[in-house]
This record gives sequence, C-alpha cells and structure tokens, in this order.
Amino acid sequence: MSLEIRADEECDRTVAFIAKTVNEAHSHGVIVGLSGGIDSAVVGALCARALGKEKVLGLLMPSTHTPREDLRDARRLADSWGIRREEIPISGIADGVMAATKAHGTKMAKANVEARVRMVLNYYRANSLGYLVAGTGDRSELLLGYFSKWGDGGADFLPIAHLYKTQVRNLGAYLGLPKRVVEKPASPQLWPGQKATDEIPADYGRLDVALHCLFDLKQKPAKAAAAAHLPLGVVKRVLVMHTKTEHKRRLPPSLT
Amino acid sequence: MSLEIRADEECDRTVAFIAKTVNEAHSHGVIVGLSGGIDSAVVGALCARALGKEKVLGLLMPSTHTPREDLRDARRLADSWGIRREEIPISGIADGVMAATKAHGTKMAKANVEARVRMVLNYYRANSLGYLVAGTGDRSELLLGYFSKWGDGGADFLPIAHLYKTQVRNLGAYLGLPKRVVEKPASPQLWPGQKATDEIPADYGRLDVALHCLFDLKQKPAKAAAAAHLPLGVVKRVLVMHTKTEHKRRLPPSLT
Repeated sequence: MSLEIRADEECDRTVAFIAKTVNEAHSHGVIVGLSGGIDSAVVGALCARALGKEKVLGLLMPSTHTPREDLRDARRLADSWGIRREEIPISGIADGVMAATKAHGTKMAKANVEARVRMVLNYYRANSLGYLVAGTGDRSELLLGYFSKWGDGGADFLPIAHLYKTQVRNLGAYLGLPKRVVEKPASPQLWPGQKATDEIPADYGRLDVALHCLFDLKQKPAKAAAAAHLPLGVVKRVLVMHTKTEHKRRLPPSLT
Repeated sequence: MSLEIRADEECDRTVAFIAKTVNEAHSHGVIVGLSGGIDSAVVGALCARALGKEKVLGLLMPSTHTPREDLRDARRLADSWGIRREEIPISGIADGVMAATKAHGTKMAKANVEARVRMVLNYYRANSLGYLVAGTGDRSELLLGYFSKWGDGGADFLPIAHLYKTQVRNLGAYLGLPKRVVEKPASPQLWPGQKATDEIPADYGRLDVALHCLFDLKQKPAKAAAAAHLPLGVVKRVLVMHTKTEHKRRLPPSLT
C-alpha cells in the first residue's frame, strides 16, 4: 500500500488551484497563518509560488507555550520566500476571552479559544487588505476531525485538504523546505508539549494508509488494519473519531 | 404574494428539530447569544420550549455601542423564560485583537471582529458545558449573505434558517414575545446607529417577497420586482449580494 504522489504534478495543480481561487474572488492576496509546522509551511510555499511573494502575508501567532524553535522556523520560512510577515502574540487575547466569562473552562475549551483567536486575527487582516484566508488543514486531520471548528477550520479555501499528512511532507521536501520542518512531529501546539500522537492512536505513516483504505477504497476496518499494520482496535477508534466529528465537516444543519 | 405561516405548526416542528439535534449530539443543552433583537429572541424562546429552561444558557455580549435598551430587552427575555444568563462585555476583547495587530483595520473588518469574538465566547462556554451553539441567522440574512463568516455564521445548528425575517416576527408574536422586540427594526449593531436598511436596499417586508420569488419560486428579477413592489434595480442588487456572498454559504473549497 503506497500513498506516493508525483510531487511535481501535485505542486502544479495545487498552485493552479490557489491562483484560480484568488483570481475568481477578485482578492488582492492571501493570509497564511504560519506555525512553523509542515502544513502551514507547504501552504505558504505554494501560495508564494502561485501568487508571487508580494501577495502573501504570513501571520505568526505564537502563544506562551509555542516552542521557540517553531516561531524561529516560521520566521525563517517567511524570509526564505521573501513574503511579508507580522507577529501577533495571542495569549493576552485568549486570556482576555477566558477572564471575561468568569466561568470555568475545560482544557479543550481553552485550546479551542487559541485556535479561534488565530482565525479572528487572520480575518481581521484579510478583511482589511482584501485578502483571502488560506486554510492549512490536511486530509488526515480533516478526516479525523482533528481541528477546531471555526478555528483553524475557519478559512476561505483549503489548498492541501486533498493531501494526507505524509503526502504533505513529500510535497514539502519537493518544495525545498528545511529537513527539520519536513520531519517535525505533528502537533497543534494547543497546550505545552501536545503531540498529535497523544490524541491520535498511531503515527501518520500508518494512519494515512488506514484512512486511505477506509475512505478512498471503502474497505472494511479489518482489511484496512491489515494493510496499515495497525491493530483493529486502533482502526475502529479512527472510525469513531471520524463519525463523532462529522458535524465539523458540514455546514450547520437547519430545516428547509 | 404572501409569506404567511401557520405559527403553531412552525413552532412545533422547529421545537422538534431543536430537541432532535441536541439529543442526537448527546449534548447537555444549548448556548444562545441574546442581542435583544427578534432573531435571537425567537431562537431563545424556542430552545427553552424544546429543552426546558435548565438546558439553555443565554449569553449577553454587549459592545460599547450596543443600545442600552437592547441589553435590557435581552435580560428581560432571558428572565421571562427562566433561563440562566451571563453578561460578557466584548469591546475590551475586540480592542485587544485590533491593538495586537498594530495594523490598520477597515470599518467592516472591525465589525467582523465583534461578531467573531461573540462566536469565540459562545463556543468557550459551550465546549466547557458540553452544549451546542444555536445560531440565530434567518433565511433573509442567509440568502443575502448579511452575516459575518465564522462569526454569527459560526454555530452548530440554525433553528430559524428556514424562516424569512417577516416570518420570524410572526413566530415571535405567536410565542408571546414583547411587541417592542417583535417590531424592533433589524440591525446587527456592529457600529453605532447601524440599521439593516442602510445596507440592504429595502424593508424586509418587500425584500422577503422578492427573495421568495427569486429563490423559492425561481422567478426572473422583473417578475420578482413586480410582486414585491420594488424597483428592478433593487432586486438586481439583491441578486448581486447573493452571488457575492455564495462563499459564506459553502464549505471552504478544496481539490479532491
């Protein structure tokens, strides 16, 4: 089972999609929230290719628990493409939201506040400049529902939503991103030390194979588990995550 | 041309929709952002009927330019249903967002920040309580795109999205809401003195007829204009608003 992509072709069609989306919206450019992670790095690199460096603004929005090396990576990436970048620390804003309610907030609720505050900032700059907000979600995260509704999920278009995490890494390598960014472990960094593998029960290498078997090839869990070399229990947990997060991949339901 | 509804039947099926949505999500209740306007008043009243007053939390989120009478109306509505209410002034948070960017913000960008900060607060409380966020958009606003993307548009379900503004007022009267709330002029109150009629080129009475003719009956603009007693130019402007805001009624596009 392989999820190999032709990186050159994938790059070309994604760049064309970005250019078409921005042109059709009569937008002047795009905002990309740059975390220092692989997804936003690939989206930023593709946007700079598609639109030219003048039309891309990178927003670096660290919290107090953002690793310093991630911020440094984000700065270096932006500078390597020659795009503008702005740094906006978000913890003061997020703390203001939570303090204003005077109510108890769960760990997950607080984490979601951070992701949503970043969305608010992305759109504040985008609305003022006549830009679109480029989302950075990949197919693995979207299928698992591993994102904050109306947070990192709140964007105008999703340039890499068709690519599994491992494919995004391959594309990143093709685009010449630094090895340490390409190989960096996935993490939403919504609390200190958070790693994607803490919440998602396998590495993305095997997870992506399982997701591909389940959702592209429509295979049964047992067959997907065998193909991905994962215990059946893990594949079943993946299916539960997918089902429970269906609401995040849909528009809010209403009567007709 | 009439948009009359059987308010009793409409009430019953909307209450059933709310109860079903909350039950199927295994949620403990709902958050409703109460502005003092007709839409959120009707949603709040319906949620209290559907779930019982214990399972509804009203969030009153005034800005510095929220009319005092709107805040007073929101308080009285919540108390009349017996639901819990919390007040969270938002201007400090919104100012914090804008100050953090050190960049120029347009009037519309600032207005959207307020709507989005309310969404962040709705979800912060909802996530912590295991509640859903009930959206308050009506069909007139949705068709016109007259809402903030991922702001008031960011909700878990939309109980009155199938009802035109004039129908929402009729339902509000049936639900026994105070006359001054039922008849209050529509306004998102995103800047001082903002009225919906400043941005939307007609009163909702005629606008709703035009929208019904265009989008339900699929009539040509000239026929819709005649039925609504509106100039053709206004109906054409409505169509432009609808087309330009199509992106707000869709999920973010991506490749497949």
